[in-house]
Amino acid sequence: MAPWTQPGLDGVDVASVVERVRSHVRPTTFIESERLDRAVGNGVRVLLVSETFQHTGSFKFRAAMSVSLHTKATKLLTASSGNFGAALAAAAARTGKACTVVMPAKSAEVKVAAVRSYGATVDLIDTAKVTRAARVEELHRADPSAMLASPYDDPHVIAGNASLGWEILTLPPERYPDVVVAPVGGGGLSSGVVVARNWIGASRPVWGAEPLAANDAARSFRSGHLESNAEDEPPTICDGARTASLGKRNWEILHSGRGLEGIVEADDSTVGAAVRLLFTAANLKAEPTGALSLGAVLTAPEKFSGKRVACVVSGGNVDVELYCTLVRKP
Amino acid sequence: MAPWTQPGLDGVDVASVVERVRSHVRPTTFIESERLDRAVGNGVRVLLVSETFQHTGSFKFRAAMSVSLHTKATKLLTASSGNFGAALAAAAARTGKACTVVMPAKSAEVKVAAVRSYGATVDLIDTAKVTRAARVEELHRADPSAMLASPYDDPHVIAGNASLGWEILTLPPERYPDVVVAPVGGGGLSSGVVVARNWIGASRPVWGAEPLAANDAARSFRSGHLESNAEDEPPTICDGARTASLGKRNWEILHSGRGLEGIVEADDSTVGAAVRLLFTAANLKAEPTGALSLGAVLTAPEKFSGKRVACVVSGGNVDVELYCTLVRKP
Repeated sequence: MAPWTQPGLDGVDVASVVERVRSHVRPTTFIESERLDRAVGNGVRVLLVSETFQHTGSFKFRAAMSVSLHTKATKLLTASSGNFGAALAAAAARTGKACTVVMPAKSAEVKVAAVRSYGATVDLIDTAKVTRAARVEELHRADPSAMLASPYDDPHVIAGNASLGWEILTLPPERYPDVVVAPVGGGGLSSGVVVARNWIGASRPVWGAEPLAANDAARSFRSGHLESNAEDEPPTICDGARTASLGKRNWEILHSGRGLEGIVEADDSTVGAAVRLLFTAANLKAEPTGALSLGAVLTAPEKFSGKRVACVVSGGNVDVELYCTLVRKP
Repeated sequence: MAPWTQPGLDGVDVASVVERVRSHVRPTTFIESERLDRAVGNGVRVLLVSETFQHTGSFKFRAAMSVSLHTKATKLLTASSGNFGAALAAAAARTGKACTVVMPAKSAEVKVAAVRSYGATVDLIDTAKVTRAARVEELHRADPSAMLASPYDDPHVIAGNASLGWEILTLPPERYPDVVVAPVGGGGLSSGVVVARNWIGASRPVWGAEPLAANDAARSFRSGHLESNAEDEPPTICDGARTASLGKRNWEILHSGRGLEGIVEADDSTVGAAVRLLFTAANLKAEPTGALSLGAVLTAPEKFSGKRVACVVSGGNVDVELYCTLVRKP
């Protein structure tokens, strides 16, 4: 039998990356709630997989540690809507590296402050004038010794995120999910879950949850080609999923024979309802992108009825004003 | 050597209660946050012990299951500002018993709804006209076969809460706290932690955290006698600690030679700051009473500097309007 290989990973050894990353990250927090299950209905039993208590408050720390532990560069450079920036800044600090993060000037204040609090340099840009990708490439040309870290389109990022998939798909039988749902932005998280699933030989379907207003991945699945959003910063409250398109490696992994089962598109109103439901019925503070998985279950209940659904809550970092607007809405 | 005995427990076997309760409750959630530690300062390392994801969203489910598993009565009756009511309702439902909960008409809406959602009868009273205790005794006289369950002044309640103390004080060395801080209302939770500490022969000090506006316990410690609040419903945002006084058994346990180290009184403004800090720096949704322990650390930092402090976050059930008022305040 040929050894297991995963397209899109450039031969990176998932097992050793997952083992190394696991020694640096916090285990995820599994949360169940009868109140939430009653509110969702359809016999769905939700298993929240919360990365809101991870270092830096999101799953991105897994990928950031993976990258920072792997690279020999002493300076890391990235463009990020916030969570990957904070995670890379924290990972750089822990591994003795410098870090610069390019962020849209309109990023959530808490996210800019978080990146700075970990000692990194924040490079704020007006996204109406320059794209994040263009600015980060400009900085890279100025200092080619720096490592340009992609938040999603990188084999070490994907393998780092596989550490979360491993935690979900090695649960004991009484919690083992029938299906996993993960938010989709650039595709780094969902690729990580799919890779972990394929690596350990599990068979559970993995669904993506994407904002309707930034549905490049869903359209890519429909057309069979990698599609992009018309706008560079699509107008959705899910700021962690405001990517122009999936990464090439992520597309390769997610669209392969053993990729995603499919993608559910959740509109912002439903994502807001999911944020509210996590607050009222599970006492869980989630950021909008983090509530996408539950939003997908609310959007397409027929896909999940009667199932134990692991909903990945990717992060909890959200501006207080936006959060209160969402949870107060009737 | 004489066998260990604990005053105030009427000979209840703590070991067997803790073992039984642990098989019915969720393990507590331990949360650490570098951001929180930086914000608290003084070299304090906070270990949040969160019962916000416990069944019914608060630690009270531990006590309620203990009581409901123990009693032969088929109907349970209690007065509660909410969390114990919801917990007893849920415990009654799981053990096939009926349940009536007397609640102040001005209770948080979410708490009244929660009690009803578990199938219990809610008896709303105007606390300006009748005390909770008087009303519950009236109901008990009408149906003496019902078991009148105290939320705190009961050996099975205290032993049930000891299951949480056991979880904290059997942590591995890298997380083992130097000191434990727990909210004090009627004294059921702090008694449980103290009893667990004494039972397993641990030596860590346990501090109580009490609202300044309902500081009967702190005054009792100063005078050496059980004191009461002037008002039956003291005006504090910590609705779980609006008790008139400590229970008699709780006072006996907390004021004994191996009782509480002391009590820190936190004003509502500091408790609000603690709620906000848990939101911004730890992604944790806590109710005001749940934030009392962190409020105590903020109030008296000199008592905790340089220490690993286990802060019990007793529950997370809070009305959205109050919550947003607290977290939005600059």
